[in-house]
Amino acid sequence: MKSYREELWFDTKTRRAYLNITPQIDAAVKKSGVQEGLVLVNAMHITASVYINDDEQGLLRDYDDFLERLAPQEAVYRHNDTGEDNGDAHLKRQIMGREVVVAITGGKLDLGPWEQIFYGEFDGRRRKRVLVKVIGE
Amino acid sequence: MKSYREELWFDTKTRRAYLNITPQIDAAVKKSGVQEGLVLVNAMHITASVYINDDEQGLLRDYDDFLERLAPQEAVYRHNDTGEDNGDAHLKRQIMGREVVVAITGGKLDLGPWEQIFYGEFDGRRRKRVLVKVIGE
Amino acid sequence: MKSYREELWFDTKTRRAYLNITPQIDAAVKKSGVQEGLVLVNAMHITASVYINDDEQGLLRDYDDFLERLAPQEAVYRHNDTGEDNGDAHLKRQIMGREVVVAITGGKLDLGPWEQIFYGEFDGRRRKRVLVKVIGE
Repeated sequence: MKSYREELWFDTKTRRAYLNITPQIDAAVKKSGVQEGLVLVNAMHITASVYINDDEQGLLRDYDDFLERLAPQEAVYRHNDTGEDNGDAHLKRQIMGREVVVAITGGKLDLGPWEQIFYGEFDGRRRKRVLVKVIGE
Repeated sequence: MKSYREELWFDTKTRRAYLNITPQIDAAVKKSGVQEGLVLVNAMHITASVYINDDEQGLLRDYDDFLERLAPQEAVYRHNDTGEDNGDAHLKRQIMGREVVVAITGGKLDLGPWEQIFYGEFDGRRRKRVLVKVIGE
Repeated sequence: MKSYREELWFDTKTRRAYLNITPQIDAAVKKSGVQEGLVLVNAMHITASVYINDDEQGLLRDYDDFLERLAPQEAVYRHNDTGEDNGDAHLKRQIMGREVVVAITGGKLDLGPWEQIFYGEFDGRRRKRVLVKVIGE
């Protein structure tokens, strides 16, 4: 069994951002040399997500509106009594998820025709990490 | 390490549908010959989900009501400015999730007593795929 | 390839509860002897979640309020026509998710600085299980 680990770092200019990271994951899989296996891609921070969906600008704004409607930034959160101001971001991340697991087949990401891997940032403007872990053969 | 890959195809008659695909995943695991490992089951399309819950007709309607309440089909979505009419389906899919990873133990799906694997379709009436990827030994 | 399986049992005193189970998962990974691999941690019941977020008391109450707002215990669910009273719990679990997959690196859980693994119970006061499955080398 082979394994490979890589960290990706992000520092978004805005509080919330949606970044297509498929090229970086594709490159990590190639570097791993794994032909058949799985790649786990997860946010290492708890106010960010990794998810898979379409890279379409209207949709990214729809997601942002949807998340802001379900967990508004300006609402009252007990978590913010700790001095934080990111209670909303902890909730938004749960809706969009922490991680994806993607199959590797023939040395490549085994994605559907429109599947793109995204980093969803809900409390940005600081350096945060994504973990890429490949296992297989 | 062994690996096995299979695609399942679906073409639902209704826009939204909830199909129990546990028998197909069970069969794929048997075909793989893997005794100890993991199986990844994911929608390959971005307006559908694979999730695990109960196969109870009332609950399936509860899920449908819940998703329609959170992301109504008839609401305004920027994504629909592209000519699509499935903005709601992209949101519904995020709530229900893209994928499940299930343990394989003793050559069988290692599921709890009520766990059933479902394909959740939110923009059907066309051919769409689910990926099954097994790794283990 | 090595594999290891363990069940954790819980019996919460309250209907809903949020338990930090990171120490148990850490111990299972050590017992597995796996140095490089993945650990799957999933609820075996369909009214409970395994998720990763912060162990902060205010946040746990924020999650509880959020879930109760989206899927109130006292609302009408068709599932409850079966004689059950836990329709809300099946919905809450979908929002928080069934499972997490965590990387194992150098024989340890490869978690970010604030990542803690939680068992989310939405229909407790009875014995329920979590599955831990480790694969790797």
